[in-house]
Amino acid sequence: MNKKALAYFQSGGPTTVINSSLYGVIAEAFKHPEIGGVYGSLYGVEGLIDDNLVDLRKEDLEQIELLKQTPGAALGSSRKKLPGVEDPLFAKIIDTIERRNIGYLLVNGGNDTMDTCYRLDSFFKDQKMDVKVIGIPKTIDNDLMATDHCPGYASAARHVLNFVKMAVVDGKAYRRGKIVLVEIMGRNAGWLTASADLLAEDERPDLIYLPESPFSLEGFLKDVKEVYDRKGYAVVVLSEGLDLPRKNAGGTDSFGHSSLEGVSIHLAEAIKEKLGIGVRSMELSLPQRADPILASKIDIEEAILLGKEAVKALLAGESGKMVAIRRLSSDPYRREIFLAPVAEVANAEKFFPRGWIFSSSRLSDEFRDYLRPLVMTATHVQYDDDGVFLSAKLRLEKVR
Amino acid sequence: MNKKALAYFQSGGPTTVINSSLYGVIAEAFKHPEIGGVYGSLYGVEGLIDDNLVDLRKEDLEQIELLKQTPGAALGSSRKKLPGVEDPLFAKIIDTIERRNIGYLLVNGGNDTMDTCYRLDSFFKDQKMDVKVIGIPKTIDNDLMATDHCPGYASAARHVLNFVKMAVVDGKAYRRGKIVLVEIMGRNAGWLTASADLLAEDERPDLIYLPESPFSLEGFLKDVKEVYDRKGYAVVVLSEGLDLPRKNAGGTDSFGHSSLEGVSIHLAEAIKEKLGIGVRSMELSLPQRADPILASKIDIEEAILLGKEAVKALLAGESGKMVAIRRLSSDPYRREIFLAPVAEVANAEKFFPRGWIFSSSRLSDEFRDYLRPLVMTATHVQYDDDGVFLSAKLRLEKVR
Repeated sequence: MNKKALAYFQSGGPTTVINSSLYGVIAEAFKHPEIGGVYGSLYGVEGLIDDNLVDLRKEDLEQIELLKQTPGAALGSSRKKLPGVEDPLFAKIIDTIERRNIGYLLVNGGNDTMDTCYRLDSFFKDQKMDVKVIGIPKTIDNDLMATDHCPGYASAARHVLNFVKMAVVDGKAYRRGKIVLVEIMGRNAGWLTASADLLAEDERPDLIYLPESPFSLEGFLKDVKEVYDRKGYAVVVLSEGLDLPRKNAGGTDSFGHSSLEGVSIHLAEAIKEKLGIGVRSMELSLPQRADPILASKIDIEEAILLGKEAVKALLAGESGKMVAIRRLSSDPYRREIFLAPVAEVANAEKFFPRGWIFSSSRLSDEFRDYLRPLVMTATHVQYDDDGVFLSAKLRLEKVR
Repeated sequence: MNKKALAYFQSGGPTTVINSSLYGVIAEAFKHPEIGGVYGSLYGVEGLIDDNLVDLRKEDLEQIELLKQTPGAALGSSRKKLPGVEDPLFAKIIDTIERRNIGYLLVNGGNDTMDTCYRLDSFFKDQKMDVKVIGIPKTIDNDLMATDHCPGYASAARHVLNFVKMAVVDGKAYRRGKIVLVEIMGRNAGWLTASADLLAEDERPDLIYLPESPFSLEGFLKDVKEVYDRKGYAVVVLSEGLDLPRKNAGGTDSFGHSSLEGVSIHLAEAIKEKLGIGVRSMELSLPQRADPILASKIDIEEAILLGKEAVKALLAGESGKMVAIRRLSSDPYRREIFLAPVAEVANAEKFFPRGWIFSSSRLSDEFRDYLRPLVMTATHVQYDDDGVFLSAKLRLEKVR
């Protein structure tokens, strides 16, 4: 048997639709008898290092179907950053590749992961190993270069839209209410925070702060007070990555990002102290990347499509590329899939355009035209007998 | 014209289904031509004091229909506590009652609100005024006496169930993950926190802490460490009302409840400091009482039913009562509506039964049998063209 096997892994923070990309990979790979084995590498690249692979052909189709509404990373994820190629870890990867006769590798993640993808591809080329590597994008931050938008973003945006509307509708309940600070994910890029701007006029937040704009505490307090005095409540959306002096909460993650005290907690304190107005801080937290109930249908479809196209690219002999989306038009929404050099994506970040930020209360129509087609369709969710969303239970049978 | 008018108000913290009770009141009241006017009192009892009433017969039926998926308090709410009857405010209430010829009053709220209901009923009786008053229960805390359960609870529980499952599924993504602390509403009663216990074996939280159980920080840290060492992550649900020494965050609300620093933030600090394990605290916050997407169908039906039954009780000459639910069986679920003296409910609290708490990792089967029929059915949600849930836009036309 000289048929090359395919291995796929998930890396970085999960999104609501990363398992939809896994679904797409499975759906396409199963159609190709020329692929020797279809393997999942558990816990990202660690599965390749430790020869910890599962045979995806052993999974039940009903469970594979449910991947489309399963949050988290069904194969486990990892934040491991690859060391230099002289590290013995690379010898272990070669061992696994050779033992399992892997010729196709799919890497599903964000910009840190695309760095892993780039380095693996370069390493295999240097070693003259016949292993093709293709990246599949995912991130709720929407900050990857080359692609019009990233799978994971639209579902997170739809979660944000609905939850900010809940805060606005709830906020109107009292004659003198509170200031509600809604903290939204996005360490450096404000795409997800910005999504709240798509809400209709009477449902939208009063103020929106993105990390791409300079932030002044004085200006913030002035804006908030003006809204509160006029309306009796205020809903303010804030990116977690706002540039303001904060205490370091200690520690860094394995990619070297430091963890900071939450902006909403910090600004809530400032409001209480300086303005003496009641305030509630509301962090949308991990459901932004894990809520299958508010997933966008287009997002799921595109995550699947990119998984399928990535398999096709491998079989066509491509390597060192990331499958990406090019928008052809917004209304009606049309797009095409293309391959971008992964080196362009690795470790780079695409920020929210400064020209799309008009003020702390309004973004541009261009942004709303960009976002609208991505979030507009609701999904059909399957629930169990207790009213809880169903999720895939995989067997994860080890390759022996 | 001597036909008496009906007035309805909402009070206390909104729930996902309080506007469903308003829907029920409207649906029933519109059927009775013997009712002179159907009025909404804006911002709770304040609308009665200030003669700030709206004519509900002027609302569009399409918008009334959407009340069933509209969070917040569509007529505005209030946390105002009534002073002694010698206060001039009571003369203002009498003015409004007489000017608008109100003979029927409906008060929709929790136990503080049932105190308002009781006091208004006693006041009208003392004054020999012909004004009947009936209470309609609502609270996500499920802590009202007399009734088997409260409208608002089951929808909040379904939100909690689904969001805790998201945290669990997401938590499994890493080989060495974090400890996730999910903070759930319930100042004194643990009903809502307990609801997470209904999740299936592989989706449930590892630990559950209710305010009804004595809490020890040492025991908590020991339990958490044991789970984390065994599984590589842990999901812990905590009631906001846990009895542990905390900083007072300053201030009290108008019912005299003091505001405390969040338990999850406090315990996250303790975990970081004493165990050195990565931790994420996740407050489910106001969407617990404002998420129409995860509303329970039974909960909406019962909120409507109680609204209708309250109108019927008024027309039958009842007063000083609260419409309540008596459970006849859990499987199949059967119930009946009855009237409970509001004095039994005012200011009292129904706690989670101590006998249903087995340990910090398990509650009793009886509780799951109690909760299951209330949450099991999903609702059909209507979305707008941007994938955001629709909500009612009322005209709120003032009574002149």
